[in-house]
Amino acid sequence: MSENLSIQEYANLLAENAREASQFVRALSADTRNQVLFRVAKLLRERLHEILAANAVDVEAAEGNLSPSMVDRLTLNPARIEAMAKGVEEIAAFTDPLNRVLEKRTLKNGLDISRVSVPIGTIFFIYESRPNVTIDGAALCFKSGNAVILRGGKESLASSKYLTTLFREALQIGGVHEDAVQLVRTPDRELMRLLLQKNEEIDLVIPRGGEGLIRAVVEQSRIPVIKHFNGICHIYVDKSAKFSEVGAILENAKVQRPSVCNTMETLLIDRAIDDNVIRDFLSPLVKKEVQFFGDAEVCSRIENVHEIEDMSHYRIEYLDLKLSIRFVGGVEEACAHIEKYSSRHTEAILAEDTTVQNYFIQHVDSSSVMINASTRFADGGEYGLGAEVGISTDKLHARGPMGMESLCTYQWIVRGNGQIRE
Amino acid sequence: MSENLSIQEYANLLAENAREASQFVRALSADTRNQVLFRVAKLLRERLHEILAANAVDVEAAEGNLSPSMVDRLTLNPARIEAMAKGVEEIAAFTDPLNRVLEKRTLKNGLDISRVSVPIGTIFFIYESRPNVTIDGAALCFKSGNAVILRGGKESLASSKYLTTLFREALQIGGVHEDAVQLVRTPDRELMRLLLQKNEEIDLVIPRGGEGLIRAVVEQSRIPVIKHFNGICHIYVDKSAKFSEVGAILENAKVQRPSVCNTMETLLIDRAIDDNVIRDFLSPLVKKEVQFFGDAEVCSRIENVHEIEDMSHYRIEYLDLKLSIRFVGGVEEACAHIEKYSSRHTEAILAEDTTVQNYFIQHVDSSSVMINASTRFADGGEYGLGAEVGISTDKLHARGPMGMESLCTYQWIVRGNGQIRE
Repeated sequence: MSENLSIQEYANLLAENAREASQFVRALSADTRNQVLFRVAKLLRERLHEILAANAVDVEAAEGNLSPSMVDRLTLNPARIEAMAKGVEEIAAFTDPLNRVLEKRTLKNGLDISRVSVPIGTIFFIYESRPNVTIDGAALCFKSGNAVILRGGKESLASSKYLTTLFREALQIGGVHEDAVQLVRTPDRELMRLLLQKNEEIDLVIPRGGEGLIRAVVEQSRIPVIKHFNGICHIYVDKSAKFSEVGAILENAKVQRPSVCNTMETLLIDRAIDDNVIRDFLSPLVKKEVQFFGDAEVCSRIENVHEIEDMSHYRIEYLDLKLSIRFVGGVEEACAHIEKYSSRHTEAILAEDTTVQNYFIQHVDSSSVMINASTRFADGGEYGLGAEVGISTDKLHARGPMGMESLCTYQWIVRGNGQIRE
Repeated sequence: MSENLSIQEYANLLAENAREASQFVRALSADTRNQVLFRVAKLLRERLHEILAANAVDVEAAEGNLSPSMVDRLTLNPARIEAMAKGVEEIAAFTDPLNRVLEKRTLKNGLDISRVSVPIGTIFFIYESRPNVTIDGAALCFKSGNAVILRGGKESLASSKYLTTLFREALQIGGVHEDAVQLVRTPDRELMRLLLQKNEEIDLVIPRGGEGLIRAVVEQSRIPVIKHFNGICHIYVDKSAKFSEVGAILENAKVQRPSVCNTMETLLIDRAIDDNVIRDFLSPLVKKEVQFFGDAEVCSRIENVHEIEDMSHYRIEYLDLKLSIRFVGGVEEACAHIEKYSSRHTEAILAEDTTVQNYFIQHVDSSSVMINASTRFADGGEYGLGAEVGISTDKLHARGPMGMESLCTYQWIVRGNGQIRE
């Protein structure tokens, strides 16, 4: 980047470079793409000290200014760098998402029609302070044949600059257009806003981070965004549930990792279940000191419940050892509650009655529906999707856990021998 | 609609009704949905005179105020009503797009994971003056389990009101929530703008019509839009082409139906082809009085060419018996021209050399790529997709000709027997 470009000129340059590079990257063989990725992994190991030195600049600037957990997030060490290298190797080893024939038919007139997976083109990848996302985002986009513009947080700029330079070195060694991977070198907000207007050159925006960042991106963008908002996940315990299993599932869904999006935030209990049974299946949560919140009915039937002030409380995503509880008069009311309060991420039903299970599946409009299993399974790794791009809370293009095919679109390829339309 | 609602209240009501109805529609069996559609077809035939009477109101108001072709577009007659009925029956008879298992695996821990097609939810369908789109849009959305808000042009309001009432009668007879199909009864622009902000209740917007309408929708919408912009389709004739076939393909692509989006607008000719060969394959176009436009080189090699003023001329979508022509130095230059000037709809290559064909496929980023066939084949009916929703010029969710699966998304259904995550 020439240092005397205006912000607008710099945005234009980034977008045009990406568009141009995308033409080259889409035509590369899987082998060429994978060799570049293995080279990136190799360079990450060889340049350990240089990476740590670049990262030290960020860490030094952060210490005293950012919270210890923020500083921890942006700190690299040999183990974390090795994990980055391994991650890139896993992406390289994964099945090629491109050139898959998704559909194929031969028409009466002899035309061969195939629908084939191809790269989306150019991706604008926006994230916060973890420098490892620089490598992960670049590797996922490059593997899927896309050119990427990376825009990390300003806290990790020195690390991201070094890591991007390293990735571009691997591209150059592989004979690939270096602008397949570009880093926004001045992460100010106006530049991001300008790039989000570039719907002619940029095909897709993927923001990764807190809700504030994602809302800002969605509001400013003229480009399609694949986004992840919050997860207000429900478990409904029906009177037909196998009660001996309920306690372990609730504990897993709430306690195993409360800070993530597929954790249970609200428990819906069939009013017909006996108080003693309820006490039994809640006891693992009580032991783990989960705090309960609920309306007057919940307070009257369950011990130590904080009474909520109004129903909007049921829209809270705690990401903590807290749980909202409500009684419902069966699966229909459970679905009505979920329709009103859920974020359409993941909901589970614990029930043996298959009619009840089917009603739940048909009426719950969330990306994942679990029957007799913990909500914590809603995850690309658990679903066997390999290298994970994220979890989409949108309905179009990609929904729920996303594999690399979410970075691809398709083309119709029609082969003939002189056909004309009647 | 209560007549004393404000515009804002009416928008809220339409959106909330659609959301509520979508819950019911998504759970209907294919049989119930198809029976409603067959009933719609039956009512269309039975109510011929009532439909014509309602339509006469629109036609009378239009005569003298609108152009004869506009009046023709909104005029119904017995043959057109029969075509509407047949269209609905075809949609009813088509394979159910819902509950298809798109992917399925059983994990080591015993969890069964399926990715299953489900309705998107609520669709806002915006169109212009053809009243038959009221029935077509409602039938496509209902068949795919979605609730729809229809917004036709004001010129056809009386017809659309009657047709919507008829569709809702069929819903009522079938025991289905009537708000599965709603018509915006005051088609003013402010109401449309308000509805386009309802991203909590409405999942998808589909505008059908001229570029002005579509641009307005895209600019105002906070909801994802599947859109169709223009088609600036290219044919590249390589020096390896089978020249005996070229003339017929060019004639078909330009002359058969010049007003549609998959017609050829620009012809790229390999500079190495002999002038006499070019004259031969252009002669069918000359006979059909197609006007040629091109730069100085084209004027020097081909007779009767209008010289263009600047290169931006190559971005014109004529939709008429006019053709832009340019010489290129082979497939690489052809792809570079297409990258710069195409609308990424459909491009064709006429070449026997497979290396050249493959280069073209790899470098052309358009929704359809034709090898040795007319661009006119880019069409859902020709591709065998059945009931056609339209042609998308977007890259995400749906690209190119769209079948009913473009009105569906998917859900992950996970069946267990008490599994918790390790």
